[in-house]
Amino acid sequence: MKAELAVVLASGGMDSCVTVAIAAQDYDLALMHVRYGQRTQCRELEAFRNIADHYRVPKDRRLVANIDHLRRIGGSSLTDKSIDIAEADLDREGIPSSYVPFRNANMLSMAVSWAEVIGATRIFIGAVEEDSSGYPDCRREFYDAFNRLIDVGTRPETQIEIVTPLIAMKKSEIVARGIELEAPLHLTWSCYRSEAKACGRCDSCTLRLRGFREAGVEDPIDYE
Amino acid sequence: MKAELAVVLASGGMDSCVTVAIAAQDYDLALMHVRYGQRTQCRELEAFRNIADHYRVPKDRRLVANIDHLRRIGGSSLTDKSIDIAEADLDREGIPSSYVPFRNANMLSMAVSWAEVIGATRIFIGAVEEDSSGYPDCRREFYDAFNRLIDVGTRPETQIEIVTPLIAMKKSEIVARGIELEAPLHLTWSCYRSEAKACGRCDSCTLRLRGFREAGVEDPIDYE
Repeated sequence: MKAELAVVLASGGMDSCVTVAIAAQDYDLALMHVRYGQRTQCRELEAFRNIADHYRVPKDRRLVANIDHLRRIGGSSLTDKSIDIAEADLDREGIPSSYVPFRNANMLSMAVSWAEVIGATRIFIGAVEEDSSGYPDCRREFYDAFNRLIDVGTRPETQIEIVTPLIAMKKSEIVARGIELEAPLHLTWSCYRSEAKACGRCDSCTLRLRGFREAGVEDPIDYE
Repeated sequence: MKAELAVVLASGGMDSCVTVAIAAQDYDLALMHVRYGQRTQCRELEAFRNIADHYRVPKDRRLVANIDHLRRIGGSSLTDKSIDIAEADLDREGIPSSYVPFRNANMLSMAVSWAEVIGATRIFIGAVEEDSSGYPDCRREFYDAFNRLIDVGTRPETQIEIVTPLIAMKKSEIVARGIELEAPLHLTWSCYRSEAKACGRCDSCTLRLRGFREAGVEDPIDYE
């Protein structure tokens, strides 16, 4: 019997790679990647392709979407080159400069459009609430509200549910789960700043490295 | 005192033109237009620009966003040239072939990102529930759910509310309101099918023409 189909939002980073590995246990995969003008979008796309190849996802189940409004809107160090990528400070309060306003709602809306057309019943996203950078669109209640939106905003016969398997995990647990599922973590890219070697100092690198350290595992990618 | 700022989603059609006129009564305007690969996107953009010029909206308060995923996803006669635009049948049951899956959620997410960066407090959208084509994302409960999503998915200090001034109006009431507010209906474009003269036979033309007829007003645009 053919499995049901799940769309997985895959940035090319570690969290979404582990999310792909989790979804692959129970679903046929359709992988979506969004280029929104982030600094490292070429390197992220390469990571996405390598991960999709690893899981043998057919070409018609891969969607690389191009949107230009988030870059043009700006307001985030990820898309606006006039704002520096901050050195990591995981104890800072408030929302970091890398926050892209309402980004996950943009991506989930895109994923729902695709899921409705291809008949996928789940959308997986590797959002992390517990051990995260503090983005407002990474919280459980945001995904609860989005599921309600899908329920009222799609065809009556459409049944799509957003699944957030990492939401309550610490980074070290994500690393451990990835290794347990043989996720290709060596193919992933997390750095906000660089496309050559990872900088090791931005929020994303720092969270990742701490996760590997606490899991007692060596990070397989190269750092500056 | 400077008025508050509102983002208005403006397709270039009649409904959104009247929505712009309504928003302009109480707010400074920021107009957003989305090119998503719809057949008539060049003509719609021209209408958008003419309407923005009419209301003297400065260039930095206009955002023309380009997204390619809805066209590539397909599933709608508006974006997929292999599906014909149906002749109007306003008594048909179910959801018409012109439905673009979850389109309004995509657009509203984009508008929220922009509103959050420029400090707008309202997002106006000319959705019509009563006298519409029956799209699921034109219903009141969809906008209620979206307001909840904004509440939980943006910065704590962000206050953005979606406003749907046409939601309960009939097309004839929209025409009458537009004329009362001196909205530039002669600059608008509604046809799903053509970019030269409006076809007069698709759902969108038919609803528009019926609205003008019932309002006892002549439609100022040309038809085939």
